[in-house]
Amino acid sequence: MRRSVRATARAVVFRSSSSPLSRGAGAGPAPRNHLRAWVHSATAAGDRFNAPPLRPDVVTIADIEERRARAGRLVAMTAAYSDSDMFKAPTTGKPKAKRLDHHLSVESTVREPCVLKQAAKHLKNPGLISLGGGLPCAEYFPFESLSMRVPQPPSFSEAATRVDGIDVRIGKYDVTDAASADASEYDLSIALNYGQANGSAQLTRFVTEHTELICNPPYADWRSCLTVGSTAALEQALRMLCDRQRHDAVLTEEYSFSTALETAAPLGVKVFGVRMDKEGLLPADLDAVLAGWDERARGARKPHVLYTVPSGQNPTGATQGEQRRRAIYQVAQKHDLYIIEDEPYYFLQMEPYGEGKGEKKKKKKDEEEGVEGFLRGLIPSLLSMDVDGRVMRMDSFSKVVVPGSRLGWITASEQMVERFIRHAEVCNQGPSGFSQVILHKLLDETWGHEGYIRWLMYLRGEYTKRRDVILAACEAHLLREVVSWNAPAAGMFHWLKVDHSLHPDAATRSILEIEEDIFNLCIDKGVLVGRGSWFRAEKDTAPTEMFFRATFAAATPENMTEAIRRFGLAIRESYRMEG
Amino acid sequence: MRRSVRATARAVVFRSSSSPLSRGAGAGPAPRNHLRAWVHSATAAGDRFNAPPLRPDVVTIADIEERRARAGRLVAMTAAYSDSDMFKAPTTGKPKAKRLDHHLSVESTVREPCVLKQAAKHLKNPGLISLGGGLPCAEYFPFESLSMRVPQPPSFSEAATRVDGIDVRIGKYDVTDAASADASEYDLSIALNYGQANGSAQLTRFVTEHTELICNPPYADWRSCLTVGSTAALEQALRMLCDRQRHDAVLTEEYSFSTALETAAPLGVKVFGVRMDKEGLLPADLDAVLAGWDERARGARKPHVLYTVPSGQNPTGATQGEQRRRAIYQVAQKHDLYIIEDEPYYFLQMEPYGEGKGEKKKKKKDEEEGVEGFLRGLIPSLLSMDVDGRVMRMDSFSKVVVPGSRLGWITASEQMVERFIRHAEVCNQGPSGFSQVILHKLLDETWGHEGYIRWLMYLRGEYTKRRDVILAACEAHLLREVVSWNAPAAGMFHWLKVDHSLHPDAATRSILEIEEDIFNLCIDKGVLVGRGSWFRAEKDTAPTEMFFRATFAAATPENMTEAIRRFGLAIRESYRMEG
Repeated sequence: MRRSVRATARAVVFRSSSSPLSRGAGAGPAPRNHLRAWVHSATAAGDRFNAPPLRPDVVTIADIEERRARAGRLVAMTAAYSDSDMFKAPTTGKPKAKRLDHHLSVESTVREPCVLKQAAKHLKNPGLISLGGGLPCAEYFPFESLSMRVPQPPSFSEAATRVDGIDVRIGKYDVTDAASADASEYDLSIALNYGQANGSAQLTRFVTEHTELICNPPYADWRSCLTVGSTAALEQALRMLCDRQRHDAVLTEEYSFSTALETAAPLGVKVFGVRMDKEGLLPADLDAVLAGWDERARGARKPHVLYTVPSGQNPTGATQGEQRRRAIYQVAQKHDLYIIEDEPYYFLQMEPYGEGKGEKKKKKKDEEEGVEGFLRGLIPSLLSMDVDGRVMRMDSFSKVVVPGSRLGWITASEQMVERFIRHAEVCNQGPSGFSQVILHKLLDETWGHEGYIRWLMYLRGEYTKRRDVILAACEAHLLREVVSWNAPAAGMFHWLKVDHSLHPDAATRSILEIEEDIFNLCIDKGVLVGRGSWFRAEKDTAPTEMFFRATFAAATPENMTEAIRRFGLAIRESYRMEG
Repeated sequence: MRRSVRATARAVVFRSSSSPLSRGAGAGPAPRNHLRAWVHSATAAGDRFNAPPLRPDVVTIADIEERRARAGRLVAMTAAYSDSDMFKAPTTGKPKAKRLDHHLSVESTVREPCVLKQAAKHLKNPGLISLGGGLPCAEYFPFESLSMRVPQPPSFSEAATRVDGIDVRIGKYDVTDAASADASEYDLSIALNYGQANGSAQLTRFVTEHTELICNPPYADWRSCLTVGSTAALEQALRMLCDRQRHDAVLTEEYSFSTALETAAPLGVKVFGVRMDKEGLLPADLDAVLAGWDERARGARKPHVLYTVPSGQNPTGATQGEQRRRAIYQVAQKHDLYIIEDEPYYFLQMEPYGEGKGEKKKKKKDEEEGVEGFLRGLIPSLLSMDVDGRVMRMDSFSKVVVPGSRLGWITASEQMVERFIRHAEVCNQGPSGFSQVILHKLLDETWGHEGYIRWLMYLRGEYTKRRDVILAACEAHLLREVVSWNAPAAGMFHWLKVDHSLHPDAATRSILEIEEDIFNLCIDKGVLVGRGSWFRAEKDTAPTEMFFRATFAAATPENMTEAIRRFGLAIRESYRMEG
């Protein structure tokens, strides 16, 4: 288990290593050799410290490690105030984000800070005794310790973990208990008490650094803030940006995540679709829809919000390439759109289908490209292009660690993140402390940034194999004259177009009726797929095409193949074709 | 560690013990002697099974154990649908709740079920392979197991837990792994995947049974549903009940929980205060406010929602007695009010100050009264009086287990709970799976209902001691001619009235100015207290009295005493009195 120890001088929640609060087993700057060898990327950290960075716009894992080592130990006690900015690299030379007051709803604009959370600022006074907040005493938390067994990078499989996983212990008073062999920067007494709604300093630091590694936004005043998952983050964002009384509307892909559509509808926010191809939404159509907006005909104000899933889009599996993203961003600038970039599948970007097949080749490729290569190979995010501060990126641990953590984060301009936190304070109050301390221990204190990236590389490889299984099954069991598809380049979903015009009842039955018939036949034959119509952004118009969504995330390879065979049988039966 | 094993025939998520899914180490009805002796209350469970219940309106722990034993093992796999009704005693003879459609907001009324969550109903088909939901495969969850050390009832202290706490392990596949010594009804593969927004069947069962023990609502179609804590539940309830465009308003105690006020304000919901005495809000004033409501003068529709904290009210510490609650409920019936009963401190009901002092006496009393006596001694909840179904009770584990679980539950009529769940599906999606599985293992599989009640008795005793410390400190260090108070009968807060009329500047400075002066002097002297004005329901009117709130939950006894001494010094200095 890696146990490095850090601090920074900038933040109220930090103490230098000479502070009495940072005494104990883990105190003082970490000797460099406490860090695992694999934590370092290309260059040796020792050399880097004196050498100027080669590309000042790229933050590396070594940069982060250097910053932490220089800063010393993070001391953030119960309900400590923290801010993503405390953990960022210097943003010298970057411009500030644009102010976007005109994008905010009335509800968001009038939010005031939570008076009791604000009072917590006095807690930093030395010697102050708080009779302020109603925080229970940790003495009454019935948890002496939590332990967990987790994979040892790079042996991430279940089998390997059973044999030589790492056992990690989280004690109640690890932070202050000098005698504890588990002395660390976060413990149960802190994590299980009330915290700030933006999340703990400990996990905020990790996601801030991770976001810097991956996206490094091109403006100065960006912030990351923990969320209880991207579904909740989207609802908060919509309430922040859209007003029922202003007749606000949102644009999205013509087929979009059904839960997102269901989130918007009760808020009185109309959703309109933008046409797509296999790289997702079409910038030209986005521009045309906005340029030709007719408020009366649409029954809504010209949209000022775009909701998009750029990688492995749900439900179509489409992935926007870099040029596509740049073109979308330009249209957003032209029409002053605010972009909600929902990226749960970002790290499940796969190699093109048919290339790099075979386990051995794959492994070899990962070794060759390494962590740096993997990071360089990711399609740049919209956030990384966001010179204006008009993107809110939503990240989530649901698809890449566990959905049950109910934990993710957003990254946006300080203005937007501050409004978002004001809302979180009076609703979910931030993510579960169990989730936070467990993810911190796993990602930060045990794996570190490089270990986590290696985990993501492992997952990418696993999902590539699964994608390949479902595509092979489709090739084997589906009639290409009726069913067509593109190979997904990311994510968990395979989108199957079924040519309704070839259906024997095409002249007499609607697409929705035929779709329902096929869906029911699928259930009869023992396979559950998603109906394309569930995902239509504009449900009050008639569909002109027919689709089904199949996930390759959940079933075993054998079951997936069998399920696609059953899907093929359902199609044949509905189309009254010979078996 | 207790490990009883159950099922019921009523629910889709249950399997009889002969089902292949319930094979394995823990399968089949539990032999009665697997249950710890202390799980049973007065009557031996064996005898009860054939004897008719003495009081059919009271549900006992033995009743619950009997129901579980009869039902067999609960089998609720990943994202299984469940409903609180599956776990209730028969409600024969009870009337159904009134329909309250007219209380719902537009936002709530138009909510549709989440199409992807609904599709999960097909998962119960035997042999069905799902390519439906984008649920990741548990194979990719990087947690082989979680373990925790928790107290062994009734030795709940930290010291006792260090010596002989119980070590509890939660494996990834405990439910299906026949070979596992940890076979149980809930495991990491289920808890850490996506679930239903109302929470897992496993923990829903526990809170439903617990609610039956404590409140046993007098109508048939009540439901409990997990929440991510009562702050979030309140926001969801307000969005469900109140409409900005309808100019809806909420009534509450004249001094109320500041976060609740801050939750309502941005929604455009005006809050009005009802006068209080030491037993909390005055039913006569509630009636008078409503009877004389003037829409134009108030700038709001006549309120149809009451938000109240009946026990250990925040900030005043006031506790409504049984007659007070009955009178409030009658006024609510008269004016068709919907009541949000927020009860985080319900179980921290204390003995009257001055009685039962001394550790030994206390312990003896607990032993004498036992679990049944403790339950009988609790002031009945508004929910237990709710013949109409016009109460939503909000419970929380924050004050009685850990705030960091971000987990609580609501109980209300089926109509209201269904609307509430529709919202949860598109925002927080229910509580963290880590929180759910950890609390299930602690409360259900390790402690059981009786162990949990004993824990609550322990906490009540601890908070009584703390309350007594702060009261003794006030008696020692505060001038009774200036500062007055009532002894709190529940909760975490002590409410101190400071007579502003005796202040030397009373004629020239406002109450708010004097309050600020005292607050700042407190900070200077090293004590943080809450300013009474933070909690005023109607902040746009001028206060006529001055208060400070002090919590006795957080600081050590020594620090609490010192803090009250400092508070006394601040008062003296502000009042320019001799030291």
